[in-house]
Amino acid sequence: MPSRLSPPQDMAALRALCMTLPDADMAADHAIARHDSSLTKPPGSLGRLEELARWTGRWQRTAWPRAERVEILVFAGNHGVTAQGVTPWPADVTRQMVENFRNGGAAINQIARVASARLRVVAVAELRPTADFTQAPAMEMPAFLHAIATGMAAVRPGTDLLCLGEMGIGNTTAAAAVCAGLFGGGGATWAGRGTGLDDAGVRHKAQVVDRALAAHAPHLHDPLEVMRHLGGHELAAMLGAAIAARHHNIPVLLDGFICTAAVAPLGVLQPGGLEHTRLAHCSAESGHARLATALGLSPLLDLGLRLGEGSGAGLAIPLVRAATACLCGMATFAQAQVSGRE
Amino acid sequence: MPSRLSPPQDMAALRALCMTLPDADMAADHAIARHDSSLTKPPGSLGRLEELARWTGRWQRTAWPRAERVEILVFAGNHGVTAQGVTPWPADVTRQMVENFRNGGAAINQIARVASARLRVVAVAELRPTADFTQAPAMEMPAFLHAIATGMAAVRPGTDLLCLGEMGIGNTTAAAAVCAGLFGGGGATWAGRGTGLDDAGVRHKAQVVDRALAAHAPHLHDPLEVMRHLGGHELAAMLGAAIAARHHNIPVLLDGFICTAAVAPLGVLQPGGLEHTRLAHCSAESGHARLATALGLSPLLDLGLRLGEGSGAGLAIPLVRAATACLCGMATFAQAQVSGRE
Repeated sequence: MPSRLSPPQDMAALRALCMTLPDADMAADHAIARHDSSLTKPPGSLGRLEELARWTGRWQRTAWPRAERVEILVFAGNHGVTAQGVTPWPADVTRQMVENFRNGGAAINQIARVASARLRVVAVAELRPTADFTQAPAMEMPAFLHAIATGMAAVRPGTDLLCLGEMGIGNTTAAAAVCAGLFGGGGATWAGRGTGLDDAGVRHKAQVVDRALAAHAPHLHDPLEVMRHLGGHELAAMLGAAIAARHHNIPVLLDGFICTAAVAPLGVLQPGGLEHTRLAHCSAESGHARLATALGLSPLLDLGLRLGEGSGAGLAIPLVRAATACLCGMATFAQAQVSGRE
Repeated sequence: MPSRLSPPQDMAALRALCMTLPDADMAADHAIARHDSSLTKPPGSLGRLEELARWTGRWQRTAWPRAERVEILVFAGNHGVTAQGVTPWPADVTRQMVENFRNGGAAINQIARVASARLRVVAVAELRPTADFTQAPAMEMPAFLHAIATGMAAVRPGTDLLCLGEMGIGNTTAAAAVCAGLFGGGGATWAGRGTGLDDAGVRHKAQVVDRALAAHAPHLHDPLEVMRHLGGHELAAMLGAAIAARHHNIPVLLDGFICTAAVAPLGVLQPGGLEHTRLAHCSAESGHARLATALGLSPLLDLGLRLGEGSGAGLAIPLVRAATACLCGMATFAQAQVSGRE
């Protein structure tokens, strides 16, 4: 295992990284299933926790998975499409919230502390906005590859579990555009209220997405070009982080709509490309449930969150930790001298 | 606030405790709502976490709720109805699992550690079985009041959050009988697979419940008598603990089907009697979703668990802790100098 992946120098190198994803360790998976069946509980009684323990183990490539070294990476970026009036919040809030993360004042700071997870915030491209994608590709090729490489480099080999999150005023519009570019359906299918649009605002946002889809139509057959034309710096960074995590045997918890849209190109490019991920929660943002279905992802939590920042992913950390703790810490029927079924 | 409640000496005294439940502190609730609206997030974006913070605060009677001193109480008991062949597991497993809890080998031990919660196991009535309730009331009055008092005494004033759980071979049959006694519908409505019955086993279990309902019909107009005739020692103890927690201003996380059935008499006796509780999860046991609906409880988690032991309640602890941490730890827009909506 390389200590770091080399950053891709061009689209072909990035595509090669996406097409050579390592598979899970099914020997570890089977060993976990065997051990689980010996533990002091009725078979299957821990429900999705049992599946989570196997998932963690087969991607960590061990029959004794753990969730001790957990990182939450929050990528922040700005969006030129805010010039189209798609959000009621000033773009400067992205920078202000990065400061808030660094000072410990945001929701994700509290959630990370409760989850005993390390939080790192990465201001992608130093928060320079992407181009307004109704007018031009969101990112020129160097900026796109830089954002991908930023996400890849942020992933530390040896991490047990990685949570991805984001901050970026305007990024539900970018996420909606990426979803429409990948799955069709147009702006009205994917545009939602974001951080607080009214009905007229949602209709306008859908029209902005539709104009972008029309402008970039010749490029939308390629999932990576969808991201470059319609995404954003922090979305591309999350995609890079998800690719790097796969190559480093690190299971990933996905957060909400924007995070899921960011990694979606990997799932579209490669069957099983997102099998090292689990969807931490279903967001209240209207497109998220539809996107989860399109990608075959089933959320662990459904709490009506619509904040981003990795908040839903952070809330799911204790579930993975409990799953691995039960697998690795419980007594067997033989050890505990507990009788089996008659 | 009394340091301990006096144990009820007779049914009238127990009923009086149930009919004099303190209300929530709505001044604290309103103060929390006001403060929450100043925090650096879009209003409502933390979804159910915002509601959980208000719930915790209004029952702790403070605008600054916390979830630091968290206790998981697991009550264990044995059931005479196992003589009717309602479970494939030998009754001795109850005692063996109590030993397993005490030695740290069960699922709930791992879940409690991950949640930084204190776990206490109470073997109610020293694990003497109740009577077979197809033949006689499960508990004579002194045994019933003793079990209630055991649950009440186990609750420590000053606890921030209490989780209830149980262990008792045969107790899904008792829980199904209690539900049928309180809500009607008969054995077929409430009997499920428990720890692993096949279809024929479930049909037999439903018939056993129906025989019990017929035998005790004259007493089933009174929710407390339903518990005495059809419940069990550990169910009565959980009911007692829920009553004591209300009197001590302690919010409660309920676990699965048996736990919810155990506290159901309080909800039936008194409108709002369970408002100091939240349902931590929806169990895979078939009657649980129906029971939750009957009581107006909405689960926080839905992970296909069917273990008991307080496992689902323990998994929800970090959600309450994150909710209170966000409320009490986040910066306001003014503090963080973050701009509001334009």
